[in-house]
Amino acid sequence: MTETFNALFAPASVAVIGASDNPNKVGGRPIHYMRTFGYTGEVFPVNPGRATIQGYRAYPTLGDIGKTPDAVVIAVSGDATLEQVRVCADAGVQAAVIMASGFAETGEAGRLRQQQLVDVAHAGGMRLVGPNAQGTANFASGAVLNFSTMFMEVAPKDGPIAIISQSGAASVMPYALLRQAGLGVRYLVATGNDADLDACAMTAAVAEDPEVRLILVYLESVTDPQALARAATLARSRGASIIAIKAGNSQRGARAAASHTGALVGNDAAIDAFLARHGIWRARDIGELVRAVPLYLQNRAPGQGRTVVMSHSGAVGVMAADLAERHDLPLTELQPPTLDRLGAILPEFGTASNPLDMTAALMGKGDMFPRVLDALGEDQQADMVMVGIPVAGPGYDVEALARDAAAFTRRLGKPLVASAPQQSVRDVFLRHGVPTFITEGDAIAALAQYAAHARIEVSAGVLASPESPTPVVLDGSGLQDEARSLSLLAEAGVPVVPYRFCSSADEAVAAFTALGGGMVVVKGCAAAVPHKSEHGLVHLRLSDAASVASVAQDCLSKLRNLGVQAARVVVAAMVKGRHEFALGVSVDPVFGPLVMIGEGGTLLELRRDIVSLLAPFGEAEVKAACARLRLAPLFDGYRDIPALDLDALAAAAVALGNWALRHREALKSVDINPLIAMAAGEGVVAVDAVVELQGT
Amino acid sequence: MTETFNALFAPASVAVIGASDNPNKVGGRPIHYMRTFGYTGEVFPVNPGRATIQGYRAYPTLGDIGKTPDAVVIAVSGDATLEQVRVCADAGVQAAVIMASGFAETGEAGRLRQQQLVDVAHAGGMRLVGPNAQGTANFASGAVLNFSTMFMEVAPKDGPIAIISQSGAASVMPYALLRQAGLGVRYLVATGNDADLDACAMTAAVAEDPEVRLILVYLESVTDPQALARAATLARSRGASIIAIKAGNSQRGARAAASHTGALVGNDAAIDAFLARHGIWRARDIGELVRAVPLYLQNRAPGQGRTVVMSHSGAVGVMAADLAERHDLPLTELQPPTLDRLGAILPEFGTASNPLDMTAALMGKGDMFPRVLDALGEDQQADMVMVGIPVAGPGYDVEALARDAAAFTRRLGKPLVASAPQQSVRDVFLRHGVPTFITEGDAIAALAQYAAHARIEVSAGVLASPESPTPVVLDGSGLQDEARSLSLLAEAGVPVVPYRFCSSADEAVAAFTALGGGMVVVKGCAAAVPHKSEHGLVHLRLSDAASVASVAQDCLSKLRNLGVQAARVVVAAMVKGRHEFALGVSVDPVFGPLVMIGEGGTLLELRRDIVSLLAPFGEAEVKAACARLRLAPLFDGYRDIPALDLDALAAAAVALGNWALRHREALKSVDINPLIAMAAGEGVVAVDAVVELQGT
Repeated sequence: MTETFNALFAPASVAVIGASDNPNKVGGRPIHYMRTFGYTGEVFPVNPGRATIQGYRAYPTLGDIGKTPDAVVIAVSGDATLEQVRVCADAGVQAAVIMASGFAETGEAGRLRQQQLVDVAHAGGMRLVGPNAQGTANFASGAVLNFSTMFMEVAPKDGPIAIISQSGAASVMPYALLRQAGLGVRYLVATGNDADLDACAMTAAVAEDPEVRLILVYLESVTDPQALARAATLARSRGASIIAIKAGNSQRGARAAASHTGALVGNDAAIDAFLARHGIWRARDIGELVRAVPLYLQNRAPGQGRTVVMSHSGAVGVMAADLAERHDLPLTELQPPTLDRLGAILPEFGTASNPLDMTAALMGKGDMFPRVLDALGEDQQADMVMVGIPVAGPGYDVEALARDAAAFTRRLGKPLVASAPQQSVRDVFLRHGVPTFITEGDAIAALAQYAAHARIEVSAGVLASPESPTPVVLDGSGLQDEARSLSLLAEAGVPVVPYRFCSSADEAVAAFTALGGGMVVVKGCAAAVPHKSEHGLVHLRLSDAASVASVAQDCLSKLRNLGVQAARVVVAAMVKGRHEFALGVSVDPVFGPLVMIGEGGTLLELRRDIVSLLAPFGEAEVKAACARLRLAPLFDGYRDIPALDLDALAAAAVALGNWALRHREALKSVDINPLIAMAAGEGVVAVDAVVELQGT
Repeated sequence: MTETFNALFAPASVAVIGASDNPNKVGGRPIHYMRTFGYTGEVFPVNPGRATIQGYRAYPTLGDIGKTPDAVVIAVSGDATLEQVRVCADAGVQAAVIMASGFAETGEAGRLRQQQLVDVAHAGGMRLVGPNAQGTANFASGAVLNFSTMFMEVAPKDGPIAIISQSGAASVMPYALLRQAGLGVRYLVATGNDADLDACAMTAAVAEDPEVRLILVYLESVTDPQALARAATLARSRGASIIAIKAGNSQRGARAAASHTGALVGNDAAIDAFLARHGIWRARDIGELVRAVPLYLQNRAPGQGRTVVMSHSGAVGVMAADLAERHDLPLTELQPPTLDRLGAILPEFGTASNPLDMTAALMGKGDMFPRVLDALGEDQQADMVMVGIPVAGPGYDVEALARDAAAFTRRLGKPLVASAPQQSVRDVFLRHGVPTFITEGDAIAALAQYAAHARIEVSAGVLASPESPTPVVLDGSGLQDEARSLSLLAEAGVPVVPYRFCSSADEAVAAFTALGGGMVVVKGCAAAVPHKSEHGLVHLRLSDAASVASVAQDCLSKLRNLGVQAARVVVAAMVKGRHEFALGVSVDPVFGPLVMIGEGGTLLELRRDIVSLLAPFGEAEVKAACARLRLAPLFDGYRDIPALDLDALAAAAVALGNWALRHREALKSVDINPLIAMAAGEGVVAVDAVVELQGT
């Protein structure tokens, strides 16, 4: 960790400006917490009105302390904050936590006041957390520069978890749930307005702590994706994981009317793609953020996630199988030797298949459960186990069940979870260290997340984190007409239909001849009219010169009537392919070019059978993404449709992604629809495209 | 309730055959429970080896009691069960619970033994629960004819909830969760093999109890849909609700290869449609089964479900808004007068819009929360409220918040829930009777379910429950060729393309002329070759006699080569419509004809943009279902596609449903693909169809 973060998380001394003797005031709580939670450094309350505060000697000003504290909590009103930031920066303080609100969150004037804080701090070499921050806390060192009331209510305990949040509330909610479950949390940071040290930077900082196994992050905006990517690489390199909520699904993208791709994928898809690429699991709410934590802390390899469900109730097995399917969690196909062994152990009315029904005979035979576990342990395809205990009571040796389950997972290193509605049963399993859930639903969801997260962590590790190429400008701005759009794409390496641009019917006929006299398409062409078919400007299957001439004339007239200067038509070869796809780009201001691939045609937006990838990416990633399309079976051939040219589709997507990355500062969006796919080996071809550049 | 159910749930006397002095044996537990849980009727243990059992006088045989008990628990081994059933039936016992396993669940021999039990019981006028049943319980009367160990662990308390389950484990899991949450349960029934009185009948029985407000049902098969429908009607008529799990999503449908519709919709879609039609909420796991129970018990009208989210944290609002969108829960658009009132109450940095951010100022101003609630209470568009309390501690008057929240919902009758990660906060809200959840995720999910369930209950109430028409037979069996299929559909009232069947090229040319000489389609026609396009048997856009002749000849040769006797071709007018739909029927053996409507074409199975309805239904229901299709915007016109003829599509679906219902015993499936839709007012037309009848 850098000095800045050391100053915040393990300071030798902390001053609190605006210190209060009342531990229930914002300026009193950090002092109370440091005193209570074992902070061994020096605490300097700063308050001109008191000689002592909470038993510590108080100082009228920071200067009166006589030495420079490593970190300062500034807990004065918003109006008084700037002056105190100046005092601290001048004194050489390394880092300050600013608790006052009333800055950027209130509007433009507040944003300017906030920028002053940063400017003044940086001028003195000081870094800021906040403003509007609940603050930082390290429960290992006891350095709690944080005013949440939560620690009054739910006592902290050090542990291998870090919580980093832009919101104070969202930082203490997972904290409360984890602590009430007995789990320890080391770092708890709520960064507020992220004017300087933001939540991404904090995530990278705590990722450096070798004892942190899991980082839970709450974001409403990703202000520094590079820092978050760095945090992910660092965490992954030592087997730690990151789970993040990104709340507030933006609808902004949908309002960008000119770009279909932008409206389709939106900002949220870019976040999905970014987090997945870096091996960060995206949780959808606080429940999902904490649900699988015990599995992460045990850190047992989930293999391919193939799961055995065992219970003494058939119904639990049936429900767990239903749930596994919903969560894409594969159930193990038990191997014949395993089935033989199980058949010898389980009573005749048990079911020696997965889900395993041990029946009520589980009660009578004390060694049945460990013997079944032994048999499963040797099956190479049994990666994880869920034990459902729907009911216990007299006759059930819950203690033995829990002990045997814990021994199994310890010995074989395979993840095992239990589910039980009875608190008394859960208590026993938890005491033996088994991750235990109230319902099968939660147990299966946790296993599914744990296994899927491990998969994306592996992919993220395999993927080189490429340097972005130097941005290259492009001439022009705003929507480009089809002539320019197609030529840009051809330059990008996307196969484009043979075409000619023509300003008159005669030129159109000449083009028809030049293209070989086969069937052609004639389309009106103007940047101002992106949705051609809605204006009757698309004419397919023309096979003679007279039709070409008349249709071209018609398009040119229509365009002129629409006010288009220098109207032109495209005459293009009619491509007979197998299926219409679409390929698009939306350049996200934070994450860069997001490439969308999906079914094309007029109904693209309705069918929404699309996937998206952040550039750059390789052909293997395109193919893996395309396998998630509903239409994926087409790539292998379906009914009377031959296998389509997925290689060519992937190559086109990669070329487009690389080109978009190179031109990411000039480019706004690309819509290629349709991109016609031929049979395998025969390629793909873009027949209609609109490129939109930045600016208007 | 009928006498049978009175005998089980409020018997004047109960005998236990196979009674045990040990309360931890199957034959001892019911006696222990009746003694412990306040049963005031007579208990007669039957056991030839003992004079007293658990303090009751014991009898060597049933006959020795000297009177006939209302109900009997038969807790002897499977082998000895039949004889005891005979003894009870002969003695005039009204109902018996059979606990032994080893019957139908073990295979065919067991099924025959089980049928003997039923036959013998019915011969004496006795009804059975089980075999393989955990049994019945009524905690109001203390009549616990049930051997679950759960009641030893989690003490019962009477309340307005009934739990009916085919599985013992699945009956006690929701019981444990509800009881641990302090909620009372009156009936708990686990019916086992459902040989006689099944879970559906039990649901109908408890629905008659006017004090039961909510029935939770677990089914692995729906053995008596009529009884379940009756239960739903009864419950709904007095404002009670039913939530059901149907576990074990059958894959059988998918194996019926000949019928695409069957494979697409499967048995599970029929269950979805059946439960929705009867106003029963389908829960997907035990967690969902119990989650919203406190809302049901408060029984406050959810209106249109428009929800206000309020919190003292902006993050909670953001997350709740995300969650509401995922759960299709509409957030209230607060009306201008409400916004004005809120603007006056909330501090300047609060957000007077929904979600409402009351900010930390909530702590300082004790009357802010009730004043905000008052303002919301007068907004006609605020139907429900979620209060998020992410953190509390010194300075928070949680008691006042909970009291104000409870007063609001009581006074206005609007549902209100709270969410809080801190157990201490939840305890206060729960004490004030506010349904309270650990996470926003659960709170929003519960509100969304409660409001959506109320909507389907209203629809179910509006829908007349029609009598099924007398079944009418159809000639033939198995797959019908296109000639027969189209003529059956025309008879059903589905518009069918003009067509002719021809056995030679000459006949095909004559048909071409007879159809007007416009563009035609020629297709090979044989019941044995349902997937024509895969065999090159479909030829489109033929516009001259010579092509028709040559293509017809080609199809006839191909069919003969495929071994088809009496090969024929269909010559049909080429229909130029706007979009291809599909219409199908799969006759479920339990629920009857399920009609599928969706996008048609070769890619039907991949796109799976389908909805399904159980026959009979009206056009309004078709339209409501079609509004859920991804392609729904087509019906209002989309881009350059004019509005499609939804009226005609709905009429065709209704006609097909009514016809399928009439012929439900003869019909197996119908696939119409494509059914071509024209612009509004221009109709729909079936151009390709396969009807499959029962038998081979």
